[in-house]
Amino acid sequence: MTEADDTGDYARHNARMARVAAAREKMQARRTLERGLLIVHTGNGKGKSSSAFGMAIRSIGWGLKVAILQYVKGKWETGERNFFEAHPDLATFEVMGEGFTWDTQDRALDITAARAAWERSKQMILDPTIDFVILDELNIVLRDDTLPIAEIVAFLKERPLTKHICITGRTAKPELLEIADLITDFTEVRHPYKAGFKAQRGVEY
Amino acid sequence: MTEADDTGDYARHNARMARVAAAREKMQARRTLERGLLIVHTGNGKGKSSSAFGMAIRSIGWGLKVAILQYVKGKWETGERNFFEAHPDLATFEVMGEGFTWDTQDRALDITAARAAWERSKQMILDPTIDFVILDELNIVLRDDTLPIAEIVAFLKERPLTKHICITGRTAKPELLEIADLITDFTEVRHPYKAGFKAQRGVEY
Repeated sequence: MTEADDTGDYARHNARMARVAAAREKMQARRTLERGLLIVHTGNGKGKSSSAFGMAIRSIGWGLKVAILQYVKGKWETGERNFFEAHPDLATFEVMGEGFTWDTQDRALDITAARAAWERSKQMILDPTIDFVILDELNIVLRDDTLPIAEIVAFLKERPLTKHICITGRTAKPELLEIADLITDFTEVRHPYKAGFKAQRGVEY
Repeated sequence: MTEADDTGDYARHNARMARVAAAREKMQARRTLERGLLIVHTGNGKGKSSSAFGMAIRSIGWGLKVAILQYVKGKWETGERNFFEAHPDLATFEVMGEGFTWDTQDRALDITAARAAWERSKQMILDPTIDFVILDELNIVLRDDTLPIAEIVAFLKERPLTKHICITGRTAKPELLEIADLITDFTEVRHPYKAGFKAQRGVEY
């Protein structure tokens, strides 16, 4: 694939790439469906939330309207929060969580906070002016059964198909994965935590 | 973990969370290192580039200076390009590629374009005013040996440790993985391509 051929040029490589291009074009032509996707970012690796924020940027770049709701990180200063609060014209950005369950140490409060966040999420999903809804760390709340998975799945099944929804968090429930259109498992291969690094601004938060 | 105990409240859950919090604090205290990380996003799943853009947003939110160089997507209109070109104050954003190798069908051009992009990448990495450098799809160019991996790895090993570098692309070379601090494998679990969906704005580009 990579070497010049005997004549010293890349004629064979270039001809092969022309065949690849033709095959790809044929494959793309078979892909015609277009509608709002239910996207799930899960797994133990780094990048689930940041990838959702990157899709927000892409969507804003196309003139789409984006709403982001963070379920857990409500009390923290994060880079994404600083960014979107400094640029309120770019997207709707709301933080509603009270911290991880070991931060609050108060399950009744966790349940109240999650319920309020879910009610707000439903408004965002039903709002016809919003094209892309990101529910950051909802999987964490579902894993702990702080919200009932059956209720959330029933609502998502009936969602308007005019918008994308992205749900993040490391342990997605099987019931959610079952109805998702796009699932990426973010798999940790190497993490600087294990080499003694602390979480760093811009990377982890 | 999730049910109220016999007394009808969550006292046992809450006490357990207090113990979890103490254990986590002890663990965090052992993580003291802080320096620029070499981050690699690889794997066949969706989200490698968008996760890098999300880290850009986080970094900008902390007042860090970000530079993004795209190796492959030079000829395309993308959401990220639209976004950063509309907001040039937010980050340095440059596109230098000529398209995938099956688009150009011209290996000599691929090599020239990749070389120019790498020379620019080195400037960004050596620029003391830049805190975070994203080299989008560099792995693609390295996989095809359009640039020599040994040269790139030698330079990265000697990089200034005052900044983060994130390299994306589905097939990272083992030589690069060996020197990386943070590696996530984006693993495809389900992709709408396979159900006949075309690539959609805001999600894939």
